[in-house]
Amino acid sequence: MCPTTKRPCAGARYRANRRSLAIFPPEVFMSATISPLAPKKYPKMPDIEGVRIATAEAGIKYKNRTDLLTMVFDAGTTVAGVFTRSKCPSAPVDFCRQNLAQGKARVLVVNSGNANAFTGNKGRASTAMTGEAAAKAAGCTPDEVFLASTGVIGEPLDAGKFSHLLAGLVKAGRPDLWTEAAKAIMTTDTYPKLATATVKLGDADVTINGIAKGAGMIAPDMATMLSFIATDAPIATPVLQDLLSRGTAKTFNAVTVDSDTSTSDTLLMFATGTAGRRGAPDITNAGDARLGAFRRALGKVLKALALQVVRDGEGARKQVEVTVTGAKSARSAKRIALSIANSPLVKTAVAGEDANWGRVVMAVGKAGEPADRDLLSIWFGDIRLAHQGERDAAYSEEATSAYMKRDEIRIRADIGIGRGKATVWTCDLTKEYVAINGDYRS
Amino acid sequence: MCPTTKRPCAGARYRANRRSLAIFPPEVFMSATISPLAPKKYPKMPDIEGVRIATAEAGIKYKNRTDLLTMVFDAGTTVAGVFTRSKCPSAPVDFCRQNLAQGKARVLVVNSGNANAFTGNKGRASTAMTGEAAAKAAGCTPDEVFLASTGVIGEPLDAGKFSHLLAGLVKAGRPDLWTEAAKAIMTTDTYPKLATATVKLGDADVTINGIAKGAGMIAPDMATMLSFIATDAPIATPVLQDLLSRGTAKTFNAVTVDSDTSTSDTLLMFATGTAGRRGAPDITNAGDARLGAFRRALGKVLKALALQVVRDGEGARKQVEVTVTGAKSARSAKRIALSIANSPLVKTAVAGEDANWGRVVMAVGKAGEPADRDLLSIWFGDIRLAHQGERDAAYSEEATSAYMKRDEIRIRADIGIGRGKATVWTCDLTKEYVAINGDYRS
Repeated sequence: MCPTTKRPCAGARYRANRRSLAIFPPEVFMSATISPLAPKKYPKMPDIEGVRIATAEAGIKYKNRTDLLTMVFDAGTTVAGVFTRSKCPSAPVDFCRQNLAQGKARVLVVNSGNANAFTGNKGRASTAMTGEAAAKAAGCTPDEVFLASTGVIGEPLDAGKFSHLLAGLVKAGRPDLWTEAAKAIMTTDTYPKLATATVKLGDADVTINGIAKGAGMIAPDMATMLSFIATDAPIATPVLQDLLSRGTAKTFNAVTVDSDTSTSDTLLMFATGTAGRRGAPDITNAGDARLGAFRRALGKVLKALALQVVRDGEGARKQVEVTVTGAKSARSAKRIALSIANSPLVKTAVAGEDANWGRVVMAVGKAGEPADRDLLSIWFGDIRLAHQGERDAAYSEEATSAYMKRDEIRIRADIGIGRGKATVWTCDLTKEYVAINGDYRS
Repeated sequence: MCPTTKRPCAGARYRANRRSLAIFPPEVFMSATISPLAPKKYPKMPDIEGVRIATAEAGIKYKNRTDLLTMVFDAGTTVAGVFTRSKCPSAPVDFCRQNLAQGKARVLVVNSGNANAFTGNKGRASTAMTGEAAAKAAGCTPDEVFLASTGVIGEPLDAGKFSHLLAGLVKAGRPDLWTEAAKAIMTTDTYPKLATATVKLGDADVTINGIAKGAGMIAPDMATMLSFIATDAPIATPVLQDLLSRGTAKTFNAVTVDSDTSTSDTLLMFATGTAGRRGAPDITNAGDARLGAFRRALGKVLKALALQVVRDGEGARKQVEVTVTGAKSARSAKRIALSIANSPLVKTAVAGEDANWGRVVMAVGKAGEPADRDLLSIWFGDIRLAHQGERDAAYSEEATSAYMKRDEIRIRADIGIGRGKATVWTCDLTKEYVAINGDYRS
């Protein structure tokens, strides 16, 4: 039963068979077509002790689907966050940034259908009202509440539409609704995004679960990047923030769909610490040697979610991995890689299955980073197309054409002047992207 | 007669009626469709004394159209140039940059069909061979030769294909072939780009003629931005460079089609000084008060050409003018304006005739420039959609929808924190852009 509508909820209906794509009924999806890059199967998400999830159909914008998510956390849960760099952040981003200072979380409330961005005083009133209602429901203070909103921007979000549901949701929370959580936060996503890992921390098993939504790497109209991670590992707030910030650089901050940055991008991580009861050590120092496996597992979860976002980029038909080597520094390599990954001409060429390495040269050239044209080499997959500033006469056009038909394309540029290296991920730019974001309103 | 093929040349065939679009035979165009934003009529281009033009069908890549242009200049002609900021410039860009140092020009050679970019030593050999052949033909030194190439990149340009034609072209040059010149340098352009102005310098009339080509603001595969300006005004080299560099900032450097930067962008200006015989004063100081009208006229010619490039952007159906006011500085305003103009989400919204001002908020936010969300106002045309950080409740959805149907859309964002102002121009992002640049090769 859905705790708020008192009808069987979508999650419950489909949970029995949740590892197959077929479980998601058509009405859940905004888009008629599921991305051809959607996962073939979904992970079975274990429970995280100390996390209780509920979803509801609040009717904020969508009909017949869930659009409200709560996660309730046990007392003592630490929290870390990474947010959009936009100078025009949404009201919930401001709200979370402020609450992050005290480092503890008891409840997360997420709605889809309205981003509560560029909503001025009304936006602040809405987050305040939601924060108070959630705090009351969870028996905590408003600064232990975290909020995220995704959907249309500039439209005031009427918190009155759903704040009265929060008490019921908080009570009804269950640990086994991760897939339902991922579905409730979708906008133009064509599939829910989930990842999980279990590793040893000391002698105890600890688990990291994560969900995300994306679509455009941001279409503020309907999409934004949100991700929520939870673990039962006992990790102090500053350590958690360090882990999350470092983990983001090579994952969520290394993916791009269309170079546009949301007003609302939010990545939050919660650590309930409940594994401490099973013997997991308290981690209070970012340099703690026992963190190695946990750090790697977190990196895997973040990367899996980030790649699911790219693979569900609006109109995406191909995943593109861009690696830059031989740059002056890692920072310079990443800038060049993003210049390649964000180039409309590179992305349309990939959509057209055209190994147009000349556009990669162009994108390296325009990045503004140190480069020497005559030392530059370029590969598509393992095929070297250009070497030391010239076309590689030895490459096979036939093999390259065959390579470009793949779903996953790897582009590598070696700048030839240093040891800086970076990898970023994007998708191709197709007519469907334009259709999703700009088709004539008729 | 075409001086090289000995057949009637396309220019001569159509010159009689050159002010109407109908003059351009279908085979001249790379694209089947002429941009809906093409000029309704073309200017009648006056002669510039001291400039002699010829074109030829060299068959570098295209068949049945001209692809080689020469302009021969009288002795004493000064030259200025502005080039791509790419770190991977083409061989002709390197060649021009080097020759610009001595400040005099006798001949310009431009080919379309091959950009001679990323061609390593072969590229340098090709420019050297062309430079020598052109110098011999024009009776000058190779450092008085200027070169530009546009077309496919990474493909060696065999100068042997056309260097033997240069002697004939130089001899056959005529002052009245500006339209033919504009046609010979086209690639994915759907129409030739021309502008002219005549003003007083002292008591004498002087003329400024210009041609350009664009298409993608660059598709290195087939397009690049080239523009060539000539005047009979007697202007010393450093003054000419100052005029051109300053003139570019608010014209060619304020337009963008897709944010991609060519390896080959080249803007050259030649001043023959022949109006000196008719009493125009020698201008040797950039601060000369007599330059006022000339500077404004040059600005108009550059802007007219830059806008023609935007209006012929690949797949363009709408011209978009983006003005940012109230920014911290003019530099900051231009960065924000380019962030808006380059945003795929803003551009697809314009294509979809959707007054999606939320995406403008997003683009302001992602620019990384000083901004205060709660002071931001946004207009489409004269309709204020957002004011001081919130949707403007008073705006009319109906009027806005009607406005978005226009061919020319104006977007204004007032940042509300300073007096910096800038305007840039772009076009919309349509499915045709994706089709032109990435349709499946089948």
